[in-house]
Amino acid sequence: MNLMRIAHVPPAAVELSGSVADAVRAMVDNGVGAVAVVDLGILKGIFSERDLMKKVIYRNLSPDKTPVAEVMTVEVESIKAEMLPADALRLMLERHFRHLPIVDESGKVQGILSIRNLLEHMVEELEDSVNSLTSYFAADGPGG
Amino acid sequence: MNLMRIAHVPPAAVELSGSVADAVRAMVDNGVGAVAVVDLGILKGIFSERDLMKKVIYRNLSPDKTPVAEVMTVEVESIKAEMLPADALRLMLERHFRHLPIVDESGKVQGILSIRNLLEHMVEELEDSVNSLTSYFAADGPGG
Repeated sequence: MNLMRIAHVPPAAVELSGSVADAVRAMVDNGVGAVAVVDLGILKGIFSERDLMKKVIYRNLSPDKTPVAEVMTVEVESIKAEMLPADALRLMLERHFRHLPIVDESGKVQGILSIRNLLEHMVEELEDSVNSLTSYFAADGPGG
Repeated sequence: MNLMRIAHVPPAAVELSGSVADAVRAMVDNGVGAVAVVDLGILKGIFSERDLMKKVIYRNLSPDKTPVAEVMTVEVESIKAEMLPADALRLMLERHFRHLPIVDESGKVQGILSIRNLLEHMVEELEDSVNSLTSYFAADGPGG
């Protein structure tokens, strides 16, 4: 299955000049846990509910007065929509990413993949594989 | 595998009389996204980073001045440590739970299960099943 069908598309996004409060509104209004921080549609960083908790609230900063650019994650790995879901999952598990932006050739954000949605998809796919393999066995297998 | 080996044990916890800021400290210090709210060790509710974002920050409430008891989720489903991981996963997916407390007979919290940890575990188990079934096929299957 194409990654774009698993990702949140279009992505929740906030302008690079926005505040943490703007990012929170974008996340809550979209029902997601991370936003792309963009400048003219180009990915500049990512900001998540975990960042909100650790970098803003835990440090007693004001969401209204803190620019999202100051607390976003800048060194963001991004992937192309053509990546296989299993490869995206491996990358996210190895690097401990909870969210991974999908960008096009020009650097524009197309969607945000969450590890939770991806894991749910993988469990469904793997359960289907196990079921079809076991029913093949039940029919006595290839040599039966 | 036992659920207690997948869950966060012991759980991050905050007293029922605590503030949202206390809950945030417990989450950040434990590196988790949800805390059990307890009174004498007994589960009274659960509070998550999503609750922090939606019920506190989005509504412009102060984490210091807001009692966690006012914004926690009270109607918490809990499970026993003996539940099968696959059954716990089904419950969490169907009811859209991200966290599920594990309690003992007396209502004391023993751990908190996150859907992400559970999904990671299920993917590993299912991959093992697919691998052993396909290698069985490679050896020509039960009738080979």
